Amino acid sequence: MQALGQRARAAARVIALAPDSQRNAALRAMAAALRERAASILAANAQDLAEARANGQNAAFIDRLLLDTGRLDGVAKAVAGVADLPDPLGKVLASWTQPNGLRFERVATPLGVIAVIFESRPNVTADAGALCLKSGNAAILRAGSDSFRTATEIATALRQGLEAAGLPGDAIQLVPTRDRAAVGEILKGLDGAIDVVVPRGGKSLVARVQSEARVPVFAHLDGNCHVYVHAQADFAMAREIVLNAKLRRTGVCGSAETLLVDEACAETLLAPLVAALLDAGCAVRGDAATQALDARVTPATEADWATEYLDAIIAVKLVAGLDAAIAHVERYGSHHTDAIVTGDTDSAARFLAEVDSAIVLHNASTQFADGGEFGFGAEIGIATGRMHARGPVGVEQLCSFKYRVHGSGQIRP
Amino acid sequence: MQALGQRARAAARVIALAPDSQRNAALRAMAAALRERAASILAANAQDLAEARANGQNAAFIDRLLLDTGRLDGVAKAVAGVADLPDPLGKVLASWTQPNGLRFERVATPLGVIAVIFESRPNVTADAGALCLKSGNAAILRAGSDSFRTATEIATALRQGLEAAGLPGDAIQLVPTRDRAAVGEILKGLDGAIDVVVPRGGKSLVARVQSEARVPVFAHLDGNCHVYVHAQADFAMAREIVLNAKLRRTGVCGSAETLLVDEACAETLLAPLVAALLDAGCAVRGDAATQALDARVTPATEADWATEYLDAIIAVKLVAGLDAAIAHVERYGSHHTDAIVTGDTDSAARFLAEVDSAIVLHNASTQFADGGEFGFGAEIGIATGRMHARGPVGVEQLCSFKYRVHGSGQIRP
Repeated sequence: MQALGQRARAAARVIALAPDSQRNAALRAMAAALRERAASILAANAQDLAEARANGQNAAFIDRLLLDTGRLDGVAKAVAGVADLPDPLGKVLASWTQPNGLRFERVATPLGVIAVIFESRPNVTADAGALCLKSGNAAILRAGSDSFRTATEIATALRQGLEAAGLPGDAIQLVPTRDRAAVGEILKGLDGAIDVVVPRGGKSLVARVQSEARVPVFAHLDGNCHVYVHAQADFAMAREIVLNAKLRRTGVCGSAETLLVDEACAETLLAPLVAALLDAGCAVRGDAATQALDARVTPATEADWATEYLDAIIAVKLVAGLDAAIAHVERYGSHHTDAIVTGDTDSAARFLAEVDSAIVLHNASTQFADGGEFGFGAEIGIATGRMHARGPVGVEQLCSFKYRVHGSGQIRP
Repeated sequence: MQALGQRARAAARVIALAPDSQRNAALRAMAAALRERAASILAANAQDLAEARANGQNAAFIDRLLLDTGRLDGVAKAVAGVADLPDPLGKVLASWTQPNGLRFERVATPLGVIAVIFESRPNVTADAGALCLKSGNAAILRAGSDSFRTATEIATALRQGLEAAGLPGDAIQLVPTRDRAAVGEILKGLDGAIDVVVPRGGKSLVARVQSEARVPVFAHLDGNCHVYVHAQADFAMAREIVLNAKLRRTGVCGSAETLLVDEACAETLLAPLVAALLDAGCAVRGDAATQALDARVTPATEADWATEYLDAIIAVKLVAGLDAAIAHVERYGSHHTDAIVTGDTDSAARFLAEVDSAIVLHNASTQFADGGEFGFGAEIGIATGRMHARGPVGVEQLCSFKYRVHGSGQIRP
């Protein structure tokens, strides 16, 4: 593993200095290699699937692991699509000139070596490798035991693409073992070879990475997102946003888990919102006021306010106003994504300022918590930490920066 | 210590939402309180000094620890000066609109709770507290054992200033014990209460913090800075820059430690540069070519290329050209600050692109590696890591960000 780290560090230096055109050529060659090697990738996937079934994995798990021709083509397309993103490297993030004539530029540079630890989705191998390459970073990828054969074949295709473009194959390395001890070594940073770790998977993986990692982590543990319907909300808008935020896809981290409604509009808004949710097939766990509205509402317990259901279930609570709503979100939320629906711009501004979440929205669905929706092209995940990257982590967030200072012989007095 | 962390976290929330005018009022009240309480601060400092002398500390140490009326006035002025910096919070770092009409803003927010661990300089208590407050963060300050009494009195003045402006005194807390175990607890993050640790002091402190911290660290271990004089350098400019980079102040992290000179200008530039350094009182440790120039040059060993002298000593080496210079800097440097002197813009551009240091300069002294010289107003230190903050860490680098999304009822298809 230490040798793997050293190879990644050496490759990172080459990738960091490779022009965008060469990184893009590698991405397109990687996409072509994924298509070329489809037969061996799908054969490896069939073996992984057979083992997963033999191990009694459930249907959802099998579906996440499954690749077919269509899905593999989607993976290849996504890799090629990363080539079309603007080059994040060398971008001048700020520039200014001091009175002594020194001209300062802050320019984007790569972070270095990024380790991505994932579970069963085989597409992550390709997606993560592509985003790291585009941002000039080397990648160390650790696949879940269940998708190991598939990931190995995909990684072979990625290496082939890198080498076809004249770049070091070691720029994207898959950890070549299913041994669980490898994860522990990655979390210790491989003797300084790893700059950041990104876990992609369930809560137990993220929790382990966050608690054990000795290097920075881009991740979110929970996405306990809120929609707060303020007294001055438009009902039709609130209804659309609440239904979309909860039910468009219930398994994504930006799906709403708690609905807060102002007391002042309990009669006008709460009842029809709850009815709309119930009618749409969503289970509602409510406080006393909500329970009183409809016999189908079950009681919410204290634990419900802190629960990320990732399912067609929502907790509903009446709040005394903006301050109470903000206090609830700060107490129970996960600093991920929270929205206010209101026609009052002052209340919206306060909610957006005072809720300390990576993403705060006014009059829009929490399901927009996604790098693609932000215009980032693709994301490696969503981070709720406050260091370096926060919110969707796209190629720009996988960059660091340096200062270039241009002088004409200046010395410091 | 855990309670101290919880108080910091609670205060951080208040400070984060306090308007700039209130944070500035607190900074000015802190400066006033430092002047008001001068007698007790200087008395405490006298006790610290007496103990340090009794413990046999050397003159340089005593000088770092010493406060007098003039120095204390300087500390107060620096605190008040932080109030004059532009507000870093709420600054819109980027904004754009997506085709669906959603308007995105990335805005600066505080990081949270910043722990600063320092040694004997008592002014750090006030400087660090002021910068954290200006950037909306709470501070936990850990003073060295030798300056504990002085730091305690200064912290009392800071608390008085905070409270005079209606802000929580817990926003700047000094760890109220000289017990060394407290440092270990801070480095573990106080149960998630600390977002980042900034060590301010010697190499052994920084090394301990970097190796033990379980939270992110803004720091640099070494400042092994280089000046590379390219074949197409102007001699007069090279001479001024080399002398300034090495000798203006030898004890600062941005002082040059190694001079690299192109073989192609060995005869025209190397000899007079070495003579100028020697004549200015700088010891020169050279490779074979440099030794041959002047009997006063002593041999450089392999260790010299990696040494931060922080003294009037410089290592000098002839290099075969730009590639060799870059390779030397990458091999022996500390990714802090490195400069090229040349009249050739292409060579300058390559050096600035390929040297992976926080600060890279063309035709300017490495001694500009300083937040004040960058126009940041003040800095809490210089970081050589690639995460979040790199180079001088001023109030903007003590900030995080969030995304504000403004909609008009958008839902995600």
